[in-house]
Amino acid sequence: MKCTRCRARAEVHLRAHNSAFCRPCFLFFFRRQVERAIAHERMCTPEEHLLVAVSGGKDSLALWDVLAELGYRTTGLYLGLGIGAYSTASHAKVETFAATRGLPLRVVDLAREESGLAIPEVARVTRRTACAACGTMKRHYFDAAALEGGFDVLVTGHNLDDEAARLMGNVLRWQTDHLARQRPVLPPTHPRFVRKVKPLYLTGEYETAVYAFMRGIDYIVDECPNAAGATQLLYKEALNRLEAASPGTKLAFVKEFLRSAQPAFSQVEGRRPQDCTRCGMPAYGEVCSFCSLVREVQAKTARAAAGAPA
Amino acid sequence: MKCTRCRARAEVHLRAHNSAFCRPCFLFFFRRQVERAIAHERMCTPEEHLLVAVSGGKDSLALWDVLAELGYRTTGLYLGLGIGAYSTASHAKVETFAATRGLPLRVVDLAREESGLAIPEVARVTRRTACAACGTMKRHYFDAAALEGGFDVLVTGHNLDDEAARLMGNVLRWQTDHLARQRPVLPPTHPRFVRKVKPLYLTGEYETAVYAFMRGIDYIVDECPNAAGATQLLYKEALNRLEAASPGTKLAFVKEFLRSAQPAFSQVEGRRPQDCTRCGMPAYGEVCSFCSLVREVQAKTARAAAGAPA
Repeated sequence: MKCTRCRARAEVHLRAHNSAFCRPCFLFFFRRQVERAIAHERMCTPEEHLLVAVSGGKDSLALWDVLAELGYRTTGLYLGLGIGAYSTASHAKVETFAATRGLPLRVVDLAREESGLAIPEVARVTRRTACAACGTMKRHYFDAAALEGGFDVLVTGHNLDDEAARLMGNVLRWQTDHLARQRPVLPPTHPRFVRKVKPLYLTGEYETAVYAFMRGIDYIVDECPNAAGATQLLYKEALNRLEAASPGTKLAFVKEFLRSAQPAFSQVEGRRPQDCTRCGMPAYGEVCSFCSLVREVQAKTARAAAGAPA
Repeated sequence: MKCTRCRARAEVHLRAHNSAFCRPCFLFFFRRQVERAIAHERMCTPEEHLLVAVSGGKDSLALWDVLAELGYRTTGLYLGLGIGAYSTASHAKVETFAATRGLPLRVVDLAREESGLAIPEVARVTRRTACAACGTMKRHYFDAAALEGGFDVLVTGHNLDDEAARLMGNVLRWQTDHLARQRPVLPPTHPRFVRKVKPLYLTGEYETAVYAFMRGIDYIVDECPNAAGATQLLYKEALNRLEAASPGTKLAFVKEFLRSAQPAFSQVEGRRPQDCTRCGMPAYGEVCSFCSLVREVQAKTARAAAGAPA
């Protein structure tokens, strides 16, 4: 098979794009995809300071790599979630990546923060799934770090597979409020929020894996141990089967949603957050979901310590 | 396991409904589901004359059986599609069903109609998939039979699995015009259309199979031979996996769509059909899709006969 751009021998075949690329042309294609997503959705400008949330996985590190290559002013943000060996290993990957490239990195260790709560403890005490607890905690520390550091934009590495799976979940239950907010750019709805962007929202997982490999990025290959059995993985599996039968399914699903269906749901949006009475961050109730979760953990822990049934 | 209604030994377990039923209670539950769908969506009244499209499969025969039991005035409509042994066998099942119950049946044999075109020929000549050709042909003959016979309502046996698979297909490509029309009741948009209703739209395939078995309905078990590899089956398979992991997924998908998402799409609807200049039936272009298909077959057949490349 020949490279679609230069006719050299192709190394990568992208069925969804009906294209094949040699190594230099794939790297060019990958970067251009990110550039186009940023330009098309007006995600950020070269003057802005970007906080890039990095997990140590291929997507976020590949994205950080591209953004730095493209000349953006970036700082990495790593959250220590306290998920045993998985967290230790992923932290090491991120540190090495940042040190090798001389890129600034901030590390927030959940167990050492004011709340002192790592993910496993929150999940155990509240009997939530780890992913549900993790989502709330991560969102809070991302927002807090972006605010404290005076960043203009928070960048996450969500890829096409993530977005398609999330869309599938939202569509299967027709969660119109979630559908209204599922966009590659979320403008701040509160003075303490910064803009949130996902430059890889049309870039497949396979593409970021190839990019990371070609660029020699050493990333954590294992999935988070808590993700096993998560519904998100079920949706990914279903979408992978549909994609195999009809390449381009995921891309069309997400792209067409944003183009022709999302406007219909955006109208239902409207609620703007107020100030959390506990921490001052944006909240849809009296307290924000993070503070509400922390309160719940503290109350249940206190009850358990007092010997009452949890 | 005990029957949810009468505590007798249960014979059927319906995970999506979190219920189990003994035989009499299942039959009661099944009929009530149909009654409720009809009442809730105002599908038809006892005074109206219903034309029930029957294929010889479990869904349409189970539906006809229930409607007759409930006292509705029904006539069956069987289309001879000319799909070899499958058509012969399904025709026989329908004839036996109608004769045993003394129910009136109309039979339209596509090859003997004015156009003289059975499905396999249309698919071969136009190089369409058989399912695409069949959809257009069936719709036309259903509409024509309802109009000619002076029926008030056309009833089809589409079940929850059919509706969920169709919704999945429409959603994966975000076909907003199709989403706008995907409802259990379609009011006539043209004087030559009658109301179209799907009383089984919330009844699962498994439930109709159990009903048909319990009622001793002899139906054709084989799938249409043309359906193998059809995208519809892919969607059903994907939905079956999601349903197995989370019972009730299909029901929520279709029900919530109609409740909270469909209104957003209905606004995009609007085009009303005009008269087909060839047959007078409703058409969205100069001619209706059936006449356009027939013309295409005739032109291509004539060209092939004249020796020109097809």
